[in-house]
Amino acid sequence: MSRSAVAAMTAYTLDLREAEVKVNQNESPYDVPRAWKERILSRMAERPWNRYPDFESTALRTAIADSEGLAPENILVGNGSNELLAAAIGAFVGPGTPVVFPRPAFTLYEKLLTVAGGLALPIDFDPHSGLLPMERMLAAVRAHENAVAIVCSPNNPTGGVLPAGGLDALLESGAMVLLDRAYGEFGGQASLPALHPALVTFRTFSKAWGLAALRIGWCASTAEQCREIRKVKLPYSLNVISEAIAVEALHDRSLRDANVARIVAERERLFTAMRAVPGITVFPTRANFITFRTERPLFEPLLERGILVRDVSAYPRLRGCLRVSVGTAAENDLVLAALRELA
Amino acid sequence: MSRSAVAAMTAYTLDLREAEVKVNQNESPYDVPRAWKERILSRMAERPWNRYPDFESTALRTAIADSEGLAPENILVGNGSNELLAAAIGAFVGPGTPVVFPRPAFTLYEKLLTVAGGLALPIDFDPHSGLLPMERMLAAVRAHENAVAIVCSPNNPTGGVLPAGGLDALLESGAMVLLDRAYGEFGGQASLPALHPALVTFRTFSKAWGLAALRIGWCASTAEQCREIRKVKLPYSLNVISEAIAVEALHDRSLRDANVARIVAERERLFTAMRAVPGITVFPTRANFITFRTERPLFEPLLERGILVRDVSAYPRLRGCLRVSVGTAAENDLVLAALRELA
Repeated sequence: MSRSAVAAMTAYTLDLREAEVKVNQNESPYDVPRAWKERILSRMAERPWNRYPDFESTALRTAIADSEGLAPENILVGNGSNELLAAAIGAFVGPGTPVVFPRPAFTLYEKLLTVAGGLALPIDFDPHSGLLPMERMLAAVRAHENAVAIVCSPNNPTGGVLPAGGLDALLESGAMVLLDRAYGEFGGQASLPALHPALVTFRTFSKAWGLAALRIGWCASTAEQCREIRKVKLPYSLNVISEAIAVEALHDRSLRDANVARIVAERERLFTAMRAVPGITVFPTRANFITFRTERPLFEPLLERGILVRDVSAYPRLRGCLRVSVGTAAENDLVLAALRELA
Repeated sequence: MSRSAVAAMTAYTLDLREAEVKVNQNESPYDVPRAWKERILSRMAERPWNRYPDFESTALRTAIADSEGLAPENILVGNGSNELLAAAIGAFVGPGTPVVFPRPAFTLYEKLLTVAGGLALPIDFDPHSGLLPMERMLAAVRAHENAVAIVCSPNNPTGGVLPAGGLDALLESGAMVLLDRAYGEFGGQASLPALHPALVTFRTFSKAWGLAALRIGWCASTAEQCREIRKVKLPYSLNVISEAIAVEALHDRSLRDANVARIVAERERLFTAMRAVPGITVFPTRANFITFRTERPLFEPLLERGILVRDVSAYPRLRGCLRVSVGTAAENDLVLAALRELA
């Protein structure tokens, strides 16, 4: 019954398994403090639940703009950064629009541009270097008129980043760049790149802030591009409770910074230790996860020991690979012990 | 910079004005009880906020399915029914797909199908009869292959409904029908129509339940169609707090039924009284709002008296029209007094 382009797609799926150590979704292992939650929740009963959220999400857009040294018209907020990415693809990708993106990357990009009817121009690359395939992306952008480039840096699921000067080179090449910075804080990129009329940067409260349950994302660009994306974005996409929680979080950046410091330190420890485990090959990463190739199948054996990782072996160029999110020190110790025993 | 189809669009807008009597968004005038809110919120601090929502939204899909006598695979939930409508249009409308819809209708339909590249086939109709233009919609569906029909019944912003047998006739004509039942409870249509492979019905917690702030919607169809829509829908679109609130609400249907009874009784009283006011013409309505034509401009004069209605005069066929949501009895009295004085 559905359009042929959609009928041919497969749904975004997740292997739903229970495990003691859940390191499959690049979540922060640290919940926000209970007292912090209770303080915000205690104010949420005062809000009218029968009224729609503020049409402009002014409180959160202003709080983000203030924290980034921008104006509210440079910011859009939404129900997770995915929603804004989907709206941006709706705004900038139509039937036949050439869309350049590194592969492997977050599978949602390819699904969204398929729905939009765009011409997918994936640039397959080897994740061993820790860098995205800059030169070949530039060549693809230059070979097509009005290309859109979608780049996640640090990249999910490989962990690699754009090389120095990569973003500027992409912008100079004339591409419209959609830059997914979901993992930016873990790669030392907590601050935004300068605004540019051909750049939209996407950010999330789900990873470094540890607020994945609330589904809060935002994007930044010029006021003009924000207006174009907003034409496609659904109205009222952020509920009042999530919006209030995000505003409160921005008043307390130590929540985020403490998470990032702990996660980056653990990532370095875990990475160094995993590199020394025979039978696995780890890819350089600046995100809150580590992707690695295994000589023997390890997904099920790890799960039997209570460790749920993400099987990314079906991604192009990732045959035999798994992805493990950086957990607490105790969780990472369990992962390491299991890998040393099983790999 | 954006696609020409999007550049030509205007953003969905709302006149942001403050007023004592806010009857411009078809909201329920009744908030849920404070104790009810506090009971749910007190449990929300126990949830992990750093973890993504359940990938399948099983708790809410099961609760809705149970209440409708369906299976969870017949239900999708999302961030307001708009999100599911957008996903369904993405699944069923591609470049050139003929899309039949009554006009005036909710402006979002036309925006979404423009983004999808569909061929818009609006059926302009006169809202005086209180009925949607069934025969001409059927003729348009029959004149095109693989047509999609989008119908809101009761219709926003006119209040009219499909005539008896209208849905069956549309389904028999071979159209894929997207039926928006956002206002169904106010028209005596709280229950779902029977499942049909060419029918998707959309419902919301924003109107009759009075939970607009939380952004909770759902749709029902055959398992096969739900799978197709889910391919397009973004994952994790409902945050954990909104999902928990909706589950709790379904355990206490009297919340909704009491709202609906009061709103319908007030609508009938307000409609009858407005019909007797010289200088305005009211359109028959089975929704929680009344749309009416005025002989002189009344939007600003009403606002000066603290009453914010919706100016729908820019809609096709609605020149000189305003829409007023049914408020509390006291609010409706203020609206009536102002109309009697100003019209």
